[in-house]
Amino acid sequence: MFSSFGNNLKVMIYGGSHEPEIGVIIDGLPAGTEFDMDLLQQFLDRRAPGNSPFATPRKEPDTVIPQDGLKIEGCRATVTDRTIKLIIKNTNTRSQDYKNLRDVPRPGHADYTAFVKYGRELNMAGGGPFSARMTAPLCIAGGIALQLLRQKGIEIGAHIYSVGDISDTPVDPVEPNLPWGSGMAVSTESAAPDFPVIDSDAGNRMQELILKAKEDGDSIGGIVEVFAAGVPAGIGGPMYEGVEGALAPVFFGIPAVKGIEFGAGFSASRMKGSENNDPFRISDGRVITETNNHGGILGGITSGMPVIARLAFKPTPSISKEQKSVSLSRMTNETLSIEGRHDPCVVLRAVPVCEAAMAIGLLDMLLEDHR
Amino acid sequence: MFSSFGNNLKVMIYGGSHEPEIGVIIDGLPAGTEFDMDLLQQFLDRRAPGNSPFATPRKEPDTVIPQDGLKIEGCRATVTDRTIKLIIKNTNTRSQDYKNLRDVPRPGHADYTAFVKYGRELNMAGGGPFSARMTAPLCIAGGIALQLLRQKGIEIGAHIYSVGDISDTPVDPVEPNLPWGSGMAVSTESAAPDFPVIDSDAGNRMQELILKAKEDGDSIGGIVEVFAAGVPAGIGGPMYEGVEGALAPVFFGIPAVKGIEFGAGFSASRMKGSENNDPFRISDGRVITETNNHGGILGGITSGMPVIARLAFKPTPSISKEQKSVSLSRMTNETLSIEGRHDPCVVLRAVPVCEAAMAIGLLDMLLEDHR
Amino acid sequence: MFSSFGNNLKVMIYGGSHEPEIGVIIDGLPAGTEFDMDLLQQFLDRRAPGNSPFATPRKEPDTVIPQDGLKIEGCRATVTDRTIKLIIKNTNTRSQDYKNLRDVPRPGHADYTAFVKYGRELNMAGGGPFSARMTAPLCIAGGIALQLLRQKGIEIGAHIYSVGDISDTPVDPVEPNLPWGSGMAVSTESAAPDFPVIDSDAGNRMQELILKAKEDGDSIGGIVEVFAAGVPAGIGGPMYEGVEGALAPVFFGIPAVKGIEFGAGFSASRMKGSENNDPFRISDGRVITETNNHGGILGGITSGMPVIARLAFKPTPSISKEQKSVSLSRMTNETLSIEGRHDPCVVLRAVPVCEAAMAIGLLDMLLEDHR
Amino acid sequence: MFSSFGNNLKVMIYGGSHEPEIGVIIDGLPAGTEFDMDLLQQFLDRRAPGNSPFATPRKEPDTVIPQDGLKIEGCRATVTDRTIKLIIKNTNTRSQDYKNLRDVPRPGHADYTAFVKYGRELNMAGGGPFSARMTAPLCIAGGIALQLLRQKGIEIGAHIYSVGDISDTPVDPVEPNLPWGSGMAVSTESAAPDFPVIDSDAGNRMQELILKAKEDGDSIGGIVEVFAAGVPAGIGGPMYEGVEGALAPVFFGIPAVKGIEFGAGFSASRMKGSENNDPFRISDGRVITETNNHGGILGGITSGMPVIARLAFKPTPSISKEQKSVSLSRMTNETLSIEGRHDPCVVLRAVPVCEAAMAIGLLDMLLEDHR
Repeated sequence: MFSSFGNNLKVMIYGGSHEPEIGVIIDGLPAGTEFDMDLLQQFLDRRAPGNSPFATPRKEPDTVIPQDGLKIEGCRATVTDRTIKLIIKNTNTRSQDYKNLRDVPRPGHADYTAFVKYGRELNMAGGGPFSARMTAPLCIAGGIALQLLRQKGIEIGAHIYSVGDISDTPVDPVEPNLPWGSGMAVSTESAAPDFPVIDSDAGNRMQELILKAKEDGDSIGGIVEVFAAGVPAGIGGPMYEGVEGALAPVFFGIPAVKGIEFGAGFSASRMKGSENNDPFRISDGRVITETNNHGGILGGITSGMPVIARLAFKPTPSISKEQKSVSLSRMTNETLSIEGRHDPCVVLRAVPVCEAAMAIGLLDMLLEDHR
Repeated sequence: MFSSFGNNLKVMIYGGSHEPEIGVIIDGLPAGTEFDMDLLQQFLDRRAPGNSPFATPRKEPDTVIPQDGLKIEGCRATVTDRTIKLIIKNTNTRSQDYKNLRDVPRPGHADYTAFVKYGRELNMAGGGPFSARMTAPLCIAGGIALQLLRQKGIEIGAHIYSVGDISDTPVDPVEPNLPWGSGMAVSTESAAPDFPVIDSDAGNRMQELILKAKEDGDSIGGIVEVFAAGVPAGIGGPMYEGVEGALAPVFFGIPAVKGIEFGAGFSASRMKGSENNDPFRISDGRVITETNNHGGILGGITSGMPVIARLAFKPTPSISKEQKSVSLSRMTNETLSIEGRHDPCVVLRAVPVCEAAMAIGLLDMLLEDHR
Repeated sequence: MFSSFGNNLKVMIYGGSHEPEIGVIIDGLPAGTEFDMDLLQQFLDRRAPGNSPFATPRKEPDTVIPQDGLKIEGCRATVTDRTIKLIIKNTNTRSQDYKNLRDVPRPGHADYTAFVKYGRELNMAGGGPFSARMTAPLCIAGGIALQLLRQKGIEIGAHIYSVGDISDTPVDPVEPNLPWGSGMAVSTESAAPDFPVIDSDAGNRMQELILKAKEDGDSIGGIVEVFAAGVPAGIGGPMYEGVEGALAPVFFGIPAVKGIEFGAGFSASRMKGSENNDPFRISDGRVITETNNHGGILGGITSGMPVIARLAFKPTPSISKEQKSVSLSRMTNETLSIEGRHDPCVVLRAVPVCEAAMAIGLLDMLLEDHR
Repeated sequence: MFSSFGNNLKVMIYGGSHEPEIGVIIDGLPAGTEFDMDLLQQFLDRRAPGNSPFATPRKEPDTVIPQDGLKIEGCRATVTDRTIKLIIKNTNTRSQDYKNLRDVPRPGHADYTAFVKYGRELNMAGGGPFSARMTAPLCIAGGIALQLLRQKGIEIGAHIYSVGDISDTPVDPVEPNLPWGSGMAVSTESAAPDFPVIDSDAGNRMQELILKAKEDGDSIGGIVEVFAAGVPAGIGGPMYEGVEGALAPVFFGIPAVKGIEFGAGFSASRMKGSENNDPFRISDGRVITETNNHGGILGGITSGMPVIARLAFKPTPSISKEQKSVSLSRMTNETLSIEGRHDPCVVLRAVPVCEAAMAIGLLDMLLEDHR
């Protein structure tokens, strides 16, 4: 499978959990661009499954291998060509696990729609092109983008905003800051905790909820909040040039995302203008807003305030409870019970993925405006 | 201003509320495509301001004029060239109204970000490129798309889902239907009521809330729910090919939208997998789901169930209450009181605009898959 | 009709000789870009028909009218939006002239292929979308590009290289210079002569040949040579990123062009490597080549030497001699004699059009490399 | 390096002669598309160097390996995903051969321009991204396209039109046919001779000329003529939608091409309209032209007559004769003598590459028009 995003920074993700490799082709980085391979690997390790009891127990050592368009000296990678390619070898493919799923599709999963679209030929082993594993190459592109944005003074961070009904403390929308990291959120370093929440009490209750869902053979949804601080004012434009519309496809490109909001988002629909409008104020010779219900975006254009988004993740469809489904060959109603190793809650792994998506989307827009 | 959307159906909106005309260029409709100019005009009339006490009292007769690539015979328009152009003349431009807004930007409005992006040269009279008036050409493209989709058996409808805290009855996600129209929602006809809600009691309370906001010199936000029934299964693809990511930019292209959700959306984040997964069932020889939390999209691909989205609109930033702002020339804190004619609530006018956006986004995807 | 070119500088030409206006939409010029409307009009006047006995006697005052995204102060136009629109009103449309051509297509003309492609609905009056008139909006975009390139030190010039068998003196490929203009060829000014050749004797004989063809009710082909001096080295790239491949579609976008060559071009096919290879030499601290068979492009990348191209124009198909054709409705063989006002030789009007095309193509590439 | 072509059929070529692999990613083939891997390999073998005394003596077994998006059963490949990837492993890389060329660039080669563009970091071993070896992945894409076009009744063939001053017999432009192959030219089979000319006497003299150049440490240019028969009428459009402009970048993407003409091409510039216009005639109930000076394209749209193009190749710049050059580090004039294994004449290997380019360009246009 191949899936592409971007106009100026073109990111093409390819491969599948059943193929020898997965990888990403990135087009549009100026020759001479530098980044650190060690920091990139550390970022990748944050999304690696198997690091936490709250995620799936599979072990996949996702080592990033540079392939095209890069000169490597120690940990420093320099772009020599306009287009670069980096890959991860697949080492832990077990196709047979998924053999019987093709005829009886899992409710809530892409099994059925993939069958309609691609027919029986598509290899859906391990989720095929719909596998959460495809977020690894996304994180390669995003990990590079995070480093390049930091070079421009833009810091991106994310935390678990909620799991089920349990909510974390939101970030301060005017001066977002995470307890880990110094000053701004240090998303490209390994300092982020195993369970990235601001309120550790809420975090403990989330973990209990996830473990309970796991014991029940069930899963649970959640929300990730992601922000970018230091984004210059003036990026974007009206209507289809807007920042929300540019970031949304990168966010919806993350599997299991069913909703996105910027700033006050859905809450703004319940507000009056006099509540939602963020007053302007002069601060240190700059124009700022006192509150940030607009999430750093007004009229599709960045205001210089932090860009803030929240992404709603549905619960993982793969659960072991018995479910109602159908046989596609016999066209009969069936029940389905599946075994396997699955995340009871995707939001934990999704935190660095959301940072990666925000970074890719913003860098794409910044390159456009740099012309 | 020019703003473009789409890959296969390219929609380019141009003009501004202060220029002689606004219009839309549509590329990608096959020669021989037919639509009805009268139905198109009726659809445009649904979004026209001045038809309701709950909207702004301006009168703008938005007559659609076909210009390029079309043969007109009576009310029947036939596409003769790959690219067509239709325009609306601006007749009611009053630039002076907005003269002083340039130095003291309205909180919550694009005044400040437009200033940063384009400088003082940009004509912001009437909102300039950020004017809600730019949704008129969007409705031309959408009104045509609605007719073409209906020819393919796809019906699109929308209603006011909420205003402030007051909610309408949601549509049935499995068999969406609106009280107006026959069978499926008849969105391209004039049968839609002036205040399109399913629960008229809720509608009355919404109207009171809007009138109250208007009296207070304030405004109020809301949510629009839009659906498409009859969409064939198998449209879209994984990651960046997904339907959510394809529709999101068209939806965020509507001014004032700050959040989007598909199916259960943000509610799904509070559910367990066993609750959110929609059971499959055979019905009349077809595979359907018993519930529709997935909003007609699984793994980025349509399932054949209705596509359902909700769009959160922030309250109109233009209110007459005194607000805190700054002078951009003097870099001092100021207070701002504005007079003018503004919608106290945009969701009323937004209903046909959301239908138009859904239609444009779906038709773009359908043309792609038709290859 | 609409026809688009470019990746970074997007040029969209629209209209038709039978519609109320023709125009061009140009996307990608940075806000603040300035050009001179008077110089632009003077450039347009160079391609205007009716200025010369060697061209068609029609009179069309092609006045350029700025419409969108521009602030006009005196003769200075400033880009205020990313996208600008400029138009020319059509004043001299005589549809009936062409009425009978639809059933019996003119040999060598697009009548037949347009019929196959678009059917009988397409308005082919005045040539419809295939009219040479569509080169007027091309010259608007090109005239602006010429001014912007001059601001970057790039001068573009063109002359009639041949008419039939009669050849002009080629430009010096190492230091191209035209007798009109000071230093470099002054293509944006009105100093270019009515019949732009270097060797006026050859020019006289070309004029005789054209008048002879006219008397005979016939037409004659020719070649235009166009160059760009001052192009920085390092623009372009290997294979599909190459400068030849980027310029070729703009050149073939000019009606009647059937061949293109760069540098020695087809002559290089008859040379040995030891003859064709241009020796490098240091001159004033810069690397130059002693000869310029490579036409300023090596491996698809500019060398800093002048870019040189020659475009072969076929003779105008519209001649008054009796010709063999067919009736498309009756599917019978027919003979055809047409009356009308046609250029006996298109290369005269094509000279500024070739300059415009070179300028558009180069500016598009330069904007890409500027990122 | 990565280089991309196409709108509907996107062909992305990547790798380099010094990297572990070269390959091609092809996007846009409908799922279910089938082709024959053995025929594809046979087509690749036609361009393989080392098969002829007239080409370079290197041996590179270019075995095509399918990687992504394909199901292989015996020799039948079926597209399962929208995007496919096929590669060739590099086995014969000798970087040291080219070590000293970086400071003293070869005249006529991309050494100097690549240095300006990419600096010293770019690996130019074996020609780097400018290597003729990059035409192997182009031939993979082209070989597949040739098979798919044949399924649609379109046959493509090419021959050596000239080497230096020696010309082959042109193909019949109305009914092109090559002596090898049955009926139409059988370009996807191995029946094409080692030295593909129509007139074997001319072929012998060409071979003598090439051997003479080789003995002299020199090289010689040439022209390839390529045609496509069976192309349906009605493909393309006016101006930038034209077939010439769509094919030209694919042709100029072939290294060493400096000129392209369609139909009578440059000869048309010396003709009168009465000579160049191709008379229409009814033949077997179809509209044909009696001659084919228009090369199957009128007004940018195919006429149903064979599409005919000629591509001018410059002589290989890599010759062993002493040449004048410069030192880029010392900025001094130098002389250069190079040893190595080079083609004395590229047109021999270029014949299948031109067929591949024609096939890619046409299939891209046909997919567009199929929508």
